[in-house]
This record gives sequence, structure tokens and C-alpha cells, in this order.
Amino acid sequence: MFEIKYRDALGRVGILNINGKKIETPTIMPVVHPNPKKQVVPIDFIKKLTDVIITNSYITYITKHLRELALKIGIHKLIGFDKVIVTDSGSFQLGVYGDVKVSPREIIEFQEKIGVDVGTILDIPTPPDVDKEKAEKDLEETLKRAKEAVELKKEKNFRMLLNGTIQGSTYIDLRQKAAKEMSKLNFDIYPIGAVVPLMESYRYREVVEIIINSKMNLPTNKPVHLFGCGHPMLFALAVALGCDLFDSAAYILYAKDDRYLTERGTLHLEDLKDLKDFPCSCPICTEYKPKELYNLDKKEREKVLAEHNLYVTFEEMNRVKEAIKEGSLWELVEERVRAHPKLLEGYRVLKNYMYYIEKFDPVTKKTAFFYSGIESMFRPEVYRHKKRLKRLKYDKVLITNISKSIEKPYHEHLNVKETDVDILIKNPIFGFIPYYIDTVYPLSQHESPEFYDFEEKVGEEFQREFIDWLKKRAKILDIREYNQYISLVDKFDGDRFRIKRMLEYQYGKDVIEDLKIKVVRSKNTGRLRQVLDENDNILFSIRSHDNFLIPTKLGAKLLWEKLEFPKYRVVVDKEAEPFAREGRNVFAKFVIDCDDEIRPYEEVLVVNEDDDLLAYGTAILNGIEMKEFNYGLAVKVRGGVKD
Amino acid sequence: MFEIKYRDALGRVGILNINGKKIETPTIMPVVHPNPKKQVVPIDFIKKLTDVIITNSYITYITKHLRELALKIGIHKLIGFDKVIVTDSGSFQLGVYGDVKVSPREIIEFQEKIGVDVGTILDIPTPPDVDKEKAEKDLEETLKRAKEAVELKKEKNFRMLLNGTIQGSTYIDLRQKAAKEMSKLNFDIYPIGAVVPLMESYRYREVVEIIINSKMNLPTNKPVHLFGCGHPMLFALAVALGCDLFDSAAYILYAKDDRYLTERGTLHLEDLKDLKDFPCSCPICTEYKPKELYNLDKKEREKVLAEHNLYVTFEEMNRVKEAIKEGSLWELVEERVRAHPKLLEGYRVLKNYMYYIEKFDPVTKKTAFFYSGIESMFRPEVYRHKKRLKRLKYDKVLITNISKSIEKPYHEHLNVKETDVDILIKNPIFGFIPYYIDTVYPLSQHESPEFYDFEEKVGEEFQREFIDWLKKRAKILDIREYNQYISLVDKFDGDRFRIKRMLEYQYGKDVIEDLKIKVVRSKNTGRLRQVLDENDNILFSIRSHDNFLIPTKLGAKLLWEKLEFPKYRVVVDKEAEPFAREGRNVFAKFVIDCDDEIRPYEEVLVVNEDDDLLAYGTAILNGIEMKEFNYGLAVKVRGGVKD
Repeated sequence: MFEIKYRDALGRVGILNINGKKIETPTIMPVVHPNPKKQVVPIDFIKKLTDVIITNSYITYITKHLRELALKIGIHKLIGFDKVIVTDSGSFQLGVYGDVKVSPREIIEFQEKIGVDVGTILDIPTPPDVDKEKAEKDLEETLKRAKEAVELKKEKNFRMLLNGTIQGSTYIDLRQKAAKEMSKLNFDIYPIGAVVPLMESYRYREVVEIIINSKMNLPTNKPVHLFGCGHPMLFALAVALGCDLFDSAAYILYAKDDRYLTERGTLHLEDLKDLKDFPCSCPICTEYKPKELYNLDKKEREKVLAEHNLYVTFEEMNRVKEAIKEGSLWELVEERVRAHPKLLEGYRVLKNYMYYIEKFDPVTKKTAFFYSGIESMFRPEVYRHKKRLKRLKYDKVLITNISKSIEKPYHEHLNVKETDVDILIKNPIFGFIPYYIDTVYPLSQHESPEFYDFEEKVGEEFQREFIDWLKKRAKILDIREYNQYISLVDKFDGDRFRIKRMLEYQYGKDVIEDLKIKVVRSKNTGRLRQVLDENDNILFSIRSHDNFLIPTKLGAKLLWEKLEFPKYRVVVDKEAEPFAREGRNVFAKFVIDCDDEIRPYEEVLVVNEDDDLLAYGTAILNGIEMKEFNYGLAVKVRGGVKD
Repeated sequence: MFEIKYRDALGRVGILNINGKKIETPTIMPVVHPNPKKQVVPIDFIKKLTDVIITNSYITYITKHLRELALKIGIHKLIGFDKVIVTDSGSFQLGVYGDVKVSPREIIEFQEKIGVDVGTILDIPTPPDVDKEKAEKDLEETLKRAKEAVELKKEKNFRMLLNGTIQGSTYIDLRQKAAKEMSKLNFDIYPIGAVVPLMESYRYREVVEIIINSKMNLPTNKPVHLFGCGHPMLFALAVALGCDLFDSAAYILYAKDDRYLTERGTLHLEDLKDLKDFPCSCPICTEYKPKELYNLDKKEREKVLAEHNLYVTFEEMNRVKEAIKEGSLWELVEERVRAHPKLLEGYRVLKNYMYYIEKFDPVTKKTAFFYSGIESMFRPEVYRHKKRLKRLKYDKVLITNISKSIEKPYHEHLNVKETDVDILIKNPIFGFIPYYIDTVYPLSQHESPEFYDFEEKVGEEFQREFIDWLKKRAKILDIREYNQYISLVDKFDGDRFRIKRMLEYQYGKDVIEDLKIKVVRSKNTGRLRQVLDENDNILFSIRSHDNFLIPTKLGAKLLWEKLEFPKYRVVVDKEAEPFAREGRNVFAKFVIDCDDEIRPYEEVLVVNEDDDLLAYGTAILNGIEMKEFNYGLAVKVRGGVKD
């Protein structure tokens, strides 16, 4: 039902298949009133923007003529929208009024009867800061209702998908528990509920904590819906945390209040009215001058303002998708979080969760890593590099600084006599950039400003720790020792040593070992291009944009031989074996096991249960997702192995 | 000719009057081809977006049929645009081809003859990194031509305005010299030339250095045009540095190359084509799906892409204007500079120029100061506070930290026994927040995230310096001494002391001194609202959003009496005296002298040459501008003084 097309951070551009109706995520569902007469923005306008809307089944249920009509002609005809309709259940009203006039079972049955595509259980939306006891009691009730809803769906063979909402107020342990328990019930989509009051009061740190702690305990193959999040300012961060679905009543609620949404925050029409032009070029803002719009009568103003609000809302979501496809979602997030200091505070919290986030962040990206401030020092690309630095099998090491004026990749601009001494170049972001892997993403593929002095000190703690680690494993040479040593080295194959270190960094092991190889450099650029065996067969080609070692069939066999099971393996079902051997892509449903440590976009080996090599290619999912997803690609296969 | 409407940073929303045609700045002038057949985007489309375009007088001159037509019907009819037309002179072609087929004098005369609104001298565009000797020689030639052009204009009584371009390559001293010399010639507009190669190679640090060093040596009352800057990503920063005019050939050059402009950078149509929707909601991106646009034939694609590029270009300029009006231009800049690390590097350079920038930055803003990272610690609001901290007449001081959980304003949430001890609360951004002025902008009107430990250390250097300064002037109490001291204080009028400190902070002096006063607090909010004299006449009201002390007529008289000339004075011409006394606004052309230290939006005293008080009100210009501007408001007068 849910598959990943593109990904970055915990974010994903995915396809969600709802009984044959497909929607692309992340997306935002405009809240539409079930009574067309009460809908300020015409449904035909909304149709042009979206394939999915959300409406309220409870209002439909308690309003007699709507109920009767919905039961008769279905929710799609009632609203006039034939694509995906999601419904809320009345739990919002429960939160506001303390009571609703429908039972949890009735409202589930009603949603199915009127033909909604995705229904929601009648969960208890516990507000922030309540007594823990109350939050626990509410959660128990939600879980009970969730179980009943799932059983009902099964028993009556409901067609609609079901939302299982995560509650738990501001108690992180309760959110974790809710996520764990709800996961067991196998809902189709997991909304995160009752965060609106936190968002309204700029408590973004807690919103982030709630999302990430829910996310870490939910299955990776189910979309997550951040309930009530309709402000475009929050989309980039929320998507980067793994939220796939959003809903917006904001577009109309803000419009009623003469508030003008932007991707950077909210403006008031009152403050805009004296501007010559609107700071937006949507069709509304192109058609109206601020004064004109301001002078429209209330009803018309509300409508056009709501339309503007929808335009910028979708625009920002499209921007987020574009950033995911390009591999620059973190860059977008790091711009957007500057829109409010409390949003920046929320972002800063991620530092504590990088051990988890890193597992999902692609190992290579189309675009360079852009440093935007100290926050960037804690990004997953940096976290991973600091871990993988320890994959190299250091023997003799020189630690050094180099002048800021030296361009990347350093080894092309430094005049170094190459020996088996690893030169670790100090770097404020990455800690150290080893000379021999300096072309590998992101070590050359990053941009930074000139640093402040105090900024350079931020990374010193890691540098000290790493040197302590290193001292136990290698000989650290001072410059005198280094010079003395290299003066004694006569002939040294630097390119071979470079390949060795690149293999260690990428695969954790030098699979070449004592094999005779040739390293081919490009005649045009002088850069590494291929690794050949002694018979001039290609083992690896070196991808130009990230300098990853991409195996040929021979290279894959070498990796398979030298890397112990289950390293870099994706184990597939017998059924998939012939297809894989033919070089066809591996779909997630055929994966039965894999190396947990696989990261998205790593080069992996496809094997059967006996660890026979079937194919090799690029992992689209990480080690956790491989086992959880049932739809979509798991490995984009480069080639099959028939023998 | 040029007047300021709104302002923030060095940026200003202004009105430039060009022989009766008014344009609002900052603005961007689309580059239009003088031959309508070669113009890809129809002029009717451009008309809807702008009141000013730029075209090339040299191409018009050397193309026979264009020249003849232009001489016959004028440039406006030739192009089909009846608003403001600016022309370049061929100096671009001079830069590219090394030679042009027109003399400096001919091209000036030609521009006047064809009726352009703003012409340009044929300056020498020296590229970056040339030998200094060459740069000097080129500059001499430019200055010579500039002099000749100005004389010619005078002699022949030309109607058109004249652009006097600043050159000097990457030599800052030459740029400074160019600005100084050109200033003497009294041009109407000052373009900064030959920065395009720097922008193309991301050398933003040098672009910033060139702009600010030119700006510091140019008259404040003339618009500055950043020649060739058409990428919306750069607008916020360039406007914050005082650039008023921009031109864009980028919109069409990028379109020819299938490049899609955004306010965050440039995307390629190739990379966008597989997206479901464009990350923009301009009429073009709303009408076309990426695949559709990508599949248009080359000519049509170029046109619609150019139209998109124009939409986002104007959108960003409108966003910049909105930010200026709102007082949040620094916030916008601090978001935009994250779009590229080299742009961030450019921004960081401003730290070295804050002594100048601060003079122009309004003392109060409508919106709160948002901290977006370490860069924010060097903003003008902070620089000014650190200077004005020394305005308080400290006697006994306690220096302390307070818990992060205490809300602002601190004095409302701390349980302090008020005495004449100044309590200085350590703050990572502002250094210290004095307890008695903690409500004054920006001390309560700022938002920050929870700080990183290392971030807190950044401000320590200032704190140490300040304490050293303080030690020579006051007694710094430790907590034991403080407790002992306050236990002895019996009765203390904290409110009066607060007003005293607020006056010192705002005006540099306690003008109340030993006057009997009453301090009135709001019955609703408990906050300070008014300062009365002993007869209950209001001296100052306390403005709620920034807690500035706004004088009544009585208060103004008190300030006038107690503050020595020329402090806070704006001296006006005899002619203006009766109007000022009646409470009418003071226009810049009547200002004959003033306190150099006046900052925009400060409360000031309007006096005549004998220092008789005429009126009081809010300065719209700073002390430098007051003397240089000849148009627009200088002081928005609150009231006149007749007696």
C-alpha cells in the first residue's frame, strides 16, 4: 500500500495506494466541510490542488440531513470529490466539548457505510500538561477503542483504511507506549494527535520530541499523519522527522481572522494593506493589490484569502518534495527553522536522536552538504562520518591542520609524498578528513563559510575523543617522526592505498587485500575512475559525484566473498531468486532478512537463504525498512548473477 | 527626488521621483531588449509587474534601424513602455569586447536625445583580480568620463537623471575612493558596477565588502543600484546593505538555459520535470505541470520560464519590502543567507561594519528580535545595546544569572526587593540585561532558543570587558554584600528608579533628576504607563510595545532643558519655524543641522538656530541623513511649541 519513491532525512516522497486510489506523499489534506453550503472555498478549486481531502464524519453523523444524504449517496457525492476522502471521527469535538453523541463503534461503522477511504477511530485527545494519571487513563481508553475498531474492521471486512491515532499528552513515555501498542494492531496510517495546542503556543521542542518518539516506535512502512498541522512553516521539519500526511483547517481558520499564511510565518492583512504588492505571486496575490483585497467584503475576502492560504500551503509542500528528491531536505529545514527561535530550538533537539535518524538518511546525495550554522555539525551525514572514521584500519597516523585557502579535494592541492601514513586533516565540521578518502561524499561535497573562532572549538571534543581511541590502535606520529618516516619510504602505490581506505570507509573492509589490482584514472580529469583486476576486468567503477565504489558483477562477487554474512546482504525469498538472478529489481515483499546496518542508497548484495549471491544493486530501503515494507522497491538491482 | 517611507537595517522603502514619474524602491528593473522583436517576454507582461525597466542604449545606438526609430519616436514608444526607462551605456559591452563604437560623450547625448529617464555614463567595468595598476588607471578614466558627463548635462541642461557608476575591481580602497570622488559630482543614482563575475563565482564576501565600502562613502540621499544583480536569493542581503535598485537579465538568461529561479537558489528544469508539481504557485507554475512545461518547444518554454523567473523575482522583492515595513529585514536576511554557505560567509563580514550599520538601524521595531544563530549576536540591535549599557550611571551593581525558565520581562517574574542596586542579568545575546530597563526594546522583545553551552561562551568576552569598565565606575557587590546592603534599605521608590534608568538608556541622561514625579501603572496590566509631574501633568507616556518614554510637550521641554545642545536636536531653517511650532511635520530640506548621533525612530527635539524649542517628534532620518536629504520627512512631529 505504501512505497517510497525518493527519500531524504526521515522524509520520503511515497505513493500511498488506498484501494486503488493513489496519492503522493508527503501531502496536505485540506479540511472540507461535509455540508457544501458551509464550504468557503469551492470544492472545484480544491480539486485542482489535491487528490485527498479530510472531512468530519461526526458532523456528518449528527447533522440529520447530512447523515441521511451521506448514507444515501455516499460521502464522495455529498462533498463532490471523487478522489480520496479521509474522515476524522469526532475526537476533536470530544476534546473541545468533553463529550460526543456517538459511540466509538457507531462512528467507525458510519464511516465505512458512507464510503470514506480512510476512517479514524474515536480516540481520546488528551491535551498537554494534564496529570499523568489522566493521560494514562485516556490512553488506555484509546487503546481499547483501537482494538475494538480493528476487530470490527476485520469481522465486518471493512473496505476503508483505518487511522490509529497516537496519544499520550506531553508524556514522552506514554507517546512511546501508545506507538508500540498501536503498532501491534496494524493500522493503515498512524496519526499523531493532540499536538495543536503545543503548536499554537510555539512549544515546538515538545512537538519534535513527540513526533520523533512516536516515529521511533511505529512501523516504518506506514504513513504518519501529523494531525492538525497545517502551517506551511512547519512542513519541512515535520517531513524531515518522518511525517507523511498533514491536514489544514488553518487555511480557512486563518482566513476568517484576516491572517495571511506564508512559508515563514503568519502576517495580518491589516499590516499588508499599505504595501504596493503582496509578498507572494500566487494567482490571488497576482490578481489583487493588498488594498483591494483588504477592501473586499468580509465573505469574499475570506474566500480569496483562504485560496491564497491554500496556494502557499501546497507550494511549500511541493518545495519539501523537491528538496527530498534533490537530497537537500536538511538544507531546507535549516532555513525554515530560522523563521522562529522556538522552531530552531525544536530542531536543535534532533542532536539527541541522531543515532536513530542516521539510519534512515541516505549515504549519498545529489547535492552538496551546505553548512548553515552550528546546527549543521550535528546532521546525520556528520554523525555517520564520525562513526565510519573508525572503520579505517589505521597503522601510522599524522594529524594536521591545513590552510583554509587549500581547495577540496585536498589531495589534489597538497603536495604530499604518499606513504602508508594516514593523514588526518582537522575539520571543524567533520572532525577529521582522512587524506586518502577526501574525495568521498560528503568530504569533498560540502560547502562552508569561513568559521568563527569559537565555532571551530565546537568540534574539539570529538577530536579529543577520537585521538584517544586512535592512540590505542595506531602510532600517531609527530611531524618530525613523520618526516623521518616518509624520507625512508621508497616506492609506494598511493592509488591502491586510496582504494583500500575507500573500501574500508564504504564497506567496512578492504576486500582487495592482497589481490593484484590496477587503478585507472581518467585521462581528462586525472581522477580515479576504475579498479581493475590483474586481467583488466573491472571490479569497481568510481562514481564521479560521490566517489563511491560501485561494484561490477566481479566486484560484487569479491564483496560477497570477503564480507562476512550478513554484512551488506539482503536475503530474498526463493520465489524472487530467478528474477534477481536475471537482474530484475528486488521488491520489499520478497525480502526475508537483511543486514540491519544497511543504509538507504548503499550498494548491497542480494542473496538467498543459503547466502548464494543472486544480484547486486542499490538499497532503496534501510535495514529496518527492508523487513517492514511489503510494497515497492527494496533494491534497485544493477545486475544478476546467474552462475 | 528620493525620500524614505519605511526603513530597516540600511534598507529603505523609498520613493524616487524621476521628473514626475514615481517609482517605489527597492525594486528590480527587468532588462528589456530595445528591439521588441528580440524581447522574449512581451512588454505587456512586464508592464503589469513594474514601473521601471532597463534597456541598452548602446545596442540601440549601433543598430541603425533602432537608432533611427529611437531618435524619431523616442525610446518609450520604441519599446512600448511609458513609465521609467533606465539605460545602460555600453560599458557592459566594453567589458566584454574591450572596445565600443561610441564615445563617452556621444552615448550620453544619445540617451538624452531618445528620451531615457535615467542614463548612464560610459564607465570602465574593471573585472575582479586585475593588477592594481590597471584598476587604478581604469578608475581614473571612469572618473574623468564622469566629470565630463556631469558637465555636459549641466551645460546642455539635460532632463534625464544620470547614473554614476562605482568601479575599482576587487580593491576596497579603490571602491572607497571611487565612491568619494563620484559623490562630489552629485550624480542622481550610484550604481555599483562589475560585481557580476564575483556573484557568478559565489564570492559573496567580496560582494558584501564592495557594497558596504561603497555605501559608506556615498551620500545617503541617493539611491544605489547594484548593477547586474538579478538573483532573488541576494535581494534581502543587498537591500539590508543599502541597495535600492537592481536589474535582472537573469530572468531571461536563466530561462534560455532551462534554469528555474527560486528565492533560495537555482533549479534545473531537468531535475524538476519528474515532480508532480512545481515548488511555486505563480500563475505559470499553477498552469503547467513540470512535465508539460519541460515538453514545450524551446521558444515557448523559454518564454514561460522567463515569466516564472520574473514572478519569483518580484515576489522576493515584495517580501523584502514587507520585511522592511515590519522591521524584520534582519530576520529575512538571516534566513536567506542559509541558502548558500558563501552567502552566510558574506553576511558574517558585517560584524566588522556594525559601527556604521548601527547608525541607520531603527532604535525600535514593530516585531521582536528573533535569534537565528550566532550571527544574530552581532546584529545592530545588540551592538547598540552594548554601547547604551554604558549610558546608565551605575553606583552599586549585582551581577547575576537567572534560571532559563524565568519569563520576560524578568522584573515581573523575579521576587526582588527593589533598591538602588542595579542588577545586571547575564544574557548570551545582550551581555547583560539590567533589571530596571528589562522592558525596553529589545530586552523583552526578543526570542531565542535554548542555547548550546558553547554558544553561551561567545558573549563572555564582552561581559569581561564590560565588568572591567564597570569596576572603575561602580561598586560591584557580591551576593553577601548585596544581601547585607538590601537588608538595610527601608523604603525605596523602585518605579522612579526604573524611570531614571530608562531615561538614561534612551536619552543618555536622567532628565527627571530631583523633580517630584509620579509614576502611573496601568490598572489592567500593572505595567508602567505614564510619568506625571507633581501637578499630575503628563511628562512622558510609556509606549506599550517597546517601553520607550514618549515625551508630551512638557516632557519635551524638560528634555530640552536638561539635555545639552546639540543632544537630540534637529535644527531647522527660519522658514520652517512657524510650521514646526504649529505641529506640522519637519521636512528634510529645512534641516540645517542636527545631533549626529540621532538614530532613526528616536524621539527628538526640533529647534531653531538659537536652540529655541519649536516642536518634538520622531526622527525618520538619522543624524547623517538629516543633513543630506532634501526630500521627504525628517521628523514626524508629535506637537509644536508655540510659546
